[in-house]
Amino acid sequence: MSVFIINGPNLNLLGKRQPEIYGRETLADVEAACHARATELGMTVRCHQSNAEHEIIELIHEGREAAAGIIINPGAFSHTSVAILDALNTFDAPVIEVHISNIHKREAFRHHSYVSTRADAVIAGCGTEGYLLALQRMATLLA
Amino acid sequence: MSVFIINGPNLNLLGKRQPEIYGRETLADVEAACHARATELGMTVRCHQSNAEHEIIELIHEGREAAAGIIINPGAFSHTSVAILDALNTFDAPVIEVHISNIHKREAFRHHSYVSTRADAVIAGCGTEGYLLALQRMATLLA
Amino acid sequence: MSVFIINGPNLNLLGKRQPEIYGRETLADVEAACHARATELGMTVRCHQSNAEHEIIELIHEGREAAAGIIINPGAFSHTSVAILDALNTFDAPVIEVHISNIHKREAFRHHSYVSTRADAVIAGCGTEGYLLALQRMATLLA
Amino acid sequence: MSVFIINGPNLNLLGKRQPEIYGRETLADVEAACHARATELGMTVRCHQSNAEHEIIELIHEGREAAAGIIINPGAFSHTSVAILDALNTFDAPVIEVHISNIHKREAFRHHSYVSTRADAVIAGCGTEGYLLALQRMATLLA
Amino acid sequence: MSVFIINGPNLNLLGKRQPEIYGRETLADVEAACHARATELGMTVRCHQSNAEHEIIELIHEGREAAAGIIINPGAFSHTSVAILDALNTFDAPVIEVHISNIHKREAFRHHSYVSTRADAVIAGCGTEGYLLALQRMATLLA
Amino acid sequence: MSVFIINGPNLNLLGKRQPEIYGRETLADVEAACHARATELGMTVRCHQSNAEHEIIELIHEGREAAAGIIINPGAFSHTSVAILDALNTFDAPVIEVHISNIHKREAFRHHSYVSTRADAVIAGCGTEGYLLALQRMATLLA
Amino acid sequence: MSVFIINGPNLNLLGKRQPEIYGRETLADVEAACHARATELGMTVRCHQSNAEHEIIELIHEGREAAAGIIINPGAFSHTSVAILDALNTFDAPVIEVHISNIHKREAFRHHSYVSTRADAVIAGCGTEGYLLALQRMATLLA
Amino acid sequence: MSVFIINGPNLNLLGKRQPEIYGRETLADVEAACHARATELGMTVRCHQSNAEHEIIELIHEGREAAAGIIINPGAFSHTSVAILDALNTFDAPVIEVHISNIHKREAFRHHSYVSTRADAVIAGCGTEGYLLALQRMATLLA
Amino acid sequence: MSVFIINGPNLNLLGKRQPEIYGRETLADVEAACHARATELGMTVRCHQSNAEHEIIELIHEGREAAAGIIINPGAFSHTSVAILDALNTFDAPVIEVHISNIHKREAFRHHSYVSTRADAVIAGCGTEGYLLALQRMATLLA
Amino acid sequence: MSVFIINGPNLNLLGKRQPEIYGRETLADVEAACHARATELGMTVRCHQSNAEHEIIELIHEGREAAAGIIINPGAFSHTSVAILDALNTFDAPVIEVHISNIHKREAFRHHSYVSTRADAVIAGCGTEGYLLALQRMATLLA
Amino acid sequence: MSVFIINGPNLNLLGKRQPEIYGRETLADVEAACHARATELGMTVRCHQSNAEHEIIELIHEGREAAAGIIINPGAFSHTSVAILDALNTFDAPVIEVHISNIHKREAFRHHSYVSTRADAVIAGCGTEGYLLALQRMATLLA
Amino acid sequence: MSVFIINGPNLNLLGKRQPEIYGRETLADVEAACHARATELGMTVRCHQSNAEHEIIELIHEGREAAAGIIINPGAFSHTSVAILDALNTFDAPVIEVHISNIHKREAFRHHSYVSTRADAVIAGCGTEGYLLALQRMATLLA
Repeated sequence: MSVFIINGPNLNLLGKRQPEIYGRETLADVEAACHARATELGMTVRCHQSNAEHEIIELIHEGREAAAGIIINPGAFSHTSVAILDALNTFDAPVIEVHISNIHKREAFRHHSYVSTRADAVIAGCGTEGYLLALQRMATLLA
Repeated sequence: MSVFIINGPNLNLLGKRQPEIYGRETLADVEAACHARATELGMTVRCHQSNAEHEIIELIHEGREAAAGIIINPGAFSHTSVAILDALNTFDAPVIEVHISNIHKREAFRHHSYVSTRADAVIAGCGTEGYLLALQRMATLLA
Repeated sequence: MSVFIINGPNLNLLGKRQPEIYGRETLADVEAACHARATELGMTVRCHQSNAEHEIIELIHEGREAAAGIIINPGAFSHTSVAILDALNTFDAPVIEVHISNIHKREAFRHHSYVSTRADAVIAGCGTEGYLLALQRMATLLA
Repeated sequence: MSVFIINGPNLNLLGKRQPEIYGRETLADVEAACHARATELGMTVRCHQSNAEHEIIELIHEGREAAAGIIINPGAFSHTSVAILDALNTFDAPVIEVHISNIHKREAFRHHSYVSTRADAVIAGCGTEGYLLALQRMATLLA
Repeated sequence: MSVFIINGPNLNLLGKRQPEIYGRETLADVEAACHARATELGMTVRCHQSNAEHEIIELIHEGREAAAGIIINPGAFSHTSVAILDALNTFDAPVIEVHISNIHKREAFRHHSYVSTRADAVIAGCGTEGYLLALQRMATLLA
Repeated sequence: MSVFIINGPNLNLLGKRQPEIYGRETLADVEAACHARATELGMTVRCHQSNAEHEIIELIHEGREAAAGIIINPGAFSHTSVAILDALNTFDAPVIEVHISNIHKREAFRHHSYVSTRADAVIAGCGTEGYLLALQRMATLLA
Repeated sequence: MSVFIINGPNLNLLGKRQPEIYGRETLADVEAACHARATELGMTVRCHQSNAEHEIIELIHEGREAAAGIIINPGAFSHTSVAILDALNTFDAPVIEVHISNIHKREAFRHHSYVSTRADAVIAGCGTEGYLLALQRMATLLA
Repeated sequence: MSVFIINGPNLNLLGKRQPEIYGRETLADVEAACHARATELGMTVRCHQSNAEHEIIELIHEGREAAAGIIINPGAFSHTSVAILDALNTFDAPVIEVHISNIHKREAFRHHSYVSTRADAVIAGCGTEGYLLALQRMATLLA
Repeated sequence: MSVFIINGPNLNLLGKRQPEIYGRETLADVEAACHARATELGMTVRCHQSNAEHEIIELIHEGREAAAGIIINPGAFSHTSVAILDALNTFDAPVIEVHISNIHKREAFRHHSYVSTRADAVIAGCGTEGYLLALQRMATLLA
Repeated sequence: MSVFIINGPNLNLLGKRQPEIYGRETLADVEAACHARATELGMTVRCHQSNAEHEIIELIHEGREAAAGIIINPGAFSHTSVAILDALNTFDAPVIEVHISNIHKREAFRHHSYVSTRADAVIAGCGTEGYLLALQRMATLLA
Repeated sequence: MSVFIINGPNLNLLGKRQPEIYGRETLADVEAACHARATELGMTVRCHQSNAEHEIIELIHEGREAAAGIIINPGAFSHTSVAILDALNTFDAPVIEVHISNIHKREAFRHHSYVSTRADAVIAGCGTEGYLLALQRMATLLA
Repeated sequence: MSVFIINGPNLNLLGKRQPEIYGRETLADVEAACHARATELGMTVRCHQSNAEHEIIELIHEGREAAAGIIINPGAFSHTSVAILDALNTFDAPVIEVHISNIHKREAFRHHSYVSTRADAVIAGCGTEGYLLALQRMATLLA
């Protein structure tokens, strides 16, 4: 079983949009770094990005059988999607939520995340390194 | 014309996830029971489940021509989707909203449903039997 | 043991007031229909209506010994009576809340019901047929 | 048909409690003055006071047949009783709400009255003379 | 000394605008009726209408010397003018607030009146007869 | 003159309902203990329980002549009854409010008590011993 | 009959104050452009600017006889003046509200406009071209 | 490069649903009118409609390379989609938001639009002519 | 260039109304004291009082050319006038807001001042000496 | 093991400040009375007062080993200190909160106490006798 | 007796931190200026700075005997410390609150100050000159 | 220069209190692990724990000269201390906030952290491993 790394809407533009907020690494760079770190930690990862809420829901459903844990950056869906929360509530293994920026320093509507009410841990504002820290924590939880 | 029975996100997992909340019947069981009850009531039903908001919207659009009434369990979309509400506002025949659990006993964000502001009736907390009760009410309304 | 059917304030006027909201059946009609349906379902019912909060509380207390379940339309007390909620909290068997109209389509102060935080199920907007659907669900719960 | 004058909880103590707020006239004095003024205006009145919400509800029900109009000082029930509002919603003739004190100068919870959302007119802060002014307005409405 | 009757913005259109809310009597009719009733009550009145907040403030200042009491229908300024409230706070004799319609049955922003926190009495929803009732109460207060 | 001990709705079930919240002593046990403690303290008590708001209001009215002080557990009415607050506002001697459980650890709607805005003291969470502590404080106040 | 173009407080400074928000055209420039465009569209316009709420109210009253439609930029009065809303409620022909800047991107207190609850259309953030677009829409409505 | 015209959920039903709110022109009519007006203005447009949030997001992403500006009627997504706002935040050229009806006169949940916090201009309540006015403004911005 | 001292509504009554809040000095006294202190500080002042919002707006506009700084006691307009705030936003030199009483100890609606969001400094509760302290601070700012 | 009696900020001034609220007994008097009552009840007490939040936290930590129970009057820290709540959450034996005045009759910010969400009981408004009543309850709990 | 000048948390860094908000004068400079101005005014001052809430409380307690008045800049404690408010409530002589910056132009949580509800005067946004203005006002109050 | 690791109130009890929330490692264990990890990363750390807000403020002040970065678990002060936020605002190097538990899954008052509005990153719910992840991120930031 692998760890799923799920990125939500607009994250396909990583490194291309608003680099002052999100940095200059592309999603491909980040996913490559995740594979490398996972290998070091003795884990495998499967990476997915989608702009569609239902694809993320269905990935999580698939993870019920196939994922040892989920690392998710739900992007804007953090703040609006009860359906993703419900999907995660059907998943029993560890969930770690990652935000590249520190959402608590941005607009008020970004301060609440439905996903945080289910996640085991939340890592925000560590840039794309946040995914690697999440992998490290996941390794501990799955050890 | 048939009655549409529409189930929203995560309901494909019925009977598999959180049985203490949602019971042990699968969606296939529920749909079979609906067909049976509809036959008894002299109606036909068409059953759909989708995790995608746009598919539900488009089913409702289709129902404008093809449905005598709609029984809908919008799941998590109840609380967040103005677009589904707007789609239902374009539909003139009866709408009955069903929730398997009593949403008023759960988290505060589940207490408000956009769909309830359009539905003719709301049945919550009757388990999967709620669909059958809704069919019965629909039969009365369409009589 | 019988099932109690309790109707709250102003429901003695059923069929006489605001027929566009509450329909044209009288309370006597509704109670007769309940007795008939209960007989079909192999149950007996005892019907009560009161405009007085304390009489409803005391009926519920009586039900602790005498009722297999309670079907209650608390009317306006739904929204204001913590005391009826507390009485229901002392009752261990099933409770089903019925509203003739869909309270979610009316004034904002009708959207919250204290009783819903205790009820096992809530059926709203099915007109007086709602009582019969509630009986059917009660039969399932007591089976 | 007569005009009903209904006084709610604690108004039996009129003239005896907190005279700095409610004045020194007793309820009997007020009712006598109402009878006198009604006679001048060519009307008859029936006066009732009750500390019980259900008695007020039932008086209003009785008024559906027997009252040409209702003048009501709901006292504390103004702020808490949806059931009295519902009863008044079943009554088709004029309703005038009277408060002896100006409730808008008192605690915040006295600023909202459910009854005001149904009443045709509201007279507050005119002391016990408010009942006489209400009678005068009622005479105009019934003319 | 006379009683001031002050009418606020848009009341110059009385009888011409929205007669379903404000009736068909013109402001001139109302003022004539006030003069007549005042004469019966042994009082004199001075009537003013202004669409300008500062003119109303200055009328109230003038009333500090010249008015035995003030009857005011502040119209829309009820809900927004702290300055008129402050002017009334400098006035020691009785103040009665009149609204032609029952403002508690209209939009939520019309439910709060700054003037009500100073007025001795509030009469709403009695149509233009409200001014006459206010005069009657004023006569009692000044007796 | 005696001290009135008034218990509100559902407290007739004391010792029978939800013992994990309210303990196992019955109301009769509590009243007996109050009589005993009162005798030790040189006072007499009169004990009343009612599920009806109007009976509690009328007991308080009666207490205006007959009670040296009032110890009241308003139960659910604490949170909803302005009418009981108004009745207590007509009573000049000491009032002590008792809650068997610590209402501040329960649902949010139990955190506010209208009665607390009038009571001289509030004792919550001391179980049924709270009545005895209240009696002791009453003895001090009446000394 | 002509179309009234009414500009509210501080708009006399157009082109002189905060050009980064309001641009560099003066009010005279804008009014000249409106006359030109109106001529093209076969309409005549009358332009007014006032810093005084009562003058705007009285312009609207005058428009009841003289205006085929009203284009209004109420400036700061959008957010605070119920009296201007009430004046517009007495006017039966089309009303179009214009804001030079996009008020939804500015301070929260600029997000609500009383006038918008009456206006037929709202055009915001189109700079001074907004007046011309409003004229175009007005021509359609009056056609 | 062309201007993108994006219509959100349920707008495929334009002219077919609720004509009292949205008028009788179909989406095809509107798109044809946009092409015509664009040609007059020396611009080209590309028209898209989708009921799916992710398709709209991806259209906006595509626009980062291919669109000179975006005119968007997000329909119900205006009020709920942070993800579309985020997509628009990655787009540097002008954005104009159009609503066919005046959303400020409808239910409270339609008063806030996430898209408005990014849009350069907002045009609401001009019916389908709003798209043409938006094109005109776009021409100015791109000139 | 002189410093403008602007006093808002009801301040013409200074020394005459509510001396327990505002003291016994008249506005003429205060203005004389300001002239004297300004002379000591090597400045000249121009004093204005108005009960009319538009006059205050126009004074501020005039100050754009003629005032080195503005000291303003907006009285009740502090809490309600966005138009005065907007006028001050067009003024580039220093602005100091003065309140004779400490508005933070009065009613809640006096705790927020629109003017404070623009003013460089706020001095409240220093009585009429507050104007002199403001002059002193203005001298520093203009030095 | 003894019972800790902890008094928070400003309680060192007991008997010296605001005697109309807090009475005339000094803290030394209260502590002496506590020792006396404890002896009668067969318990020992240790009394502490501190104006420093961290000293109170550390006393509670010390109590984890040394205290059979804690009686605490957190004074102003009741309303603001999550840290004291957290300290009490590490303490397993009984906690009783005492307030000399009835905090529910004072400013709104005194109505919520973080400590009440942990305390077993709350005694407010019994003056300094509240400490003795708390000791009595503590004796019952520790018996 | 001297006047106490109390500075709260982080003010020891004055002149060193965020000079764009707080200026470049150090606390020592400010205190020296206060001593100089006090001497001119015939007063003596005692200056204290503390980052500890309890030290500020105890300084105020000490001031009950030793201070003719208190000038306090509570810094961040303005917004969070009920305990300092309570300490000031035990102090009978004048209290003046100073803020170097205009707190009403900063984050929303800085707009409310508990200390302002007790202070006689509040001076904000005058930079460090605010302390000297406060001394001047104190001299008037103590004269 | 070293990295400061600051732990706030009650964290001295780590491993001793509520192990189901905070785990079984003691603070000494955590600090030892931090020293070890820092050495691996080529950094030095200085560890501090305090239950006193002022000591934490002063540590941060000291860090202005001595710290290359700050890792802080403010414990309960996260939610209540503006003063610590202000101290961190005077510190220019990186700040990382750590919470052992996921505060978003606990009581509502723990969802907001003043410190988060300043921190560069926030790591919550990773248990005591969170400190090590923070060190890793700090190493990246300081590289």
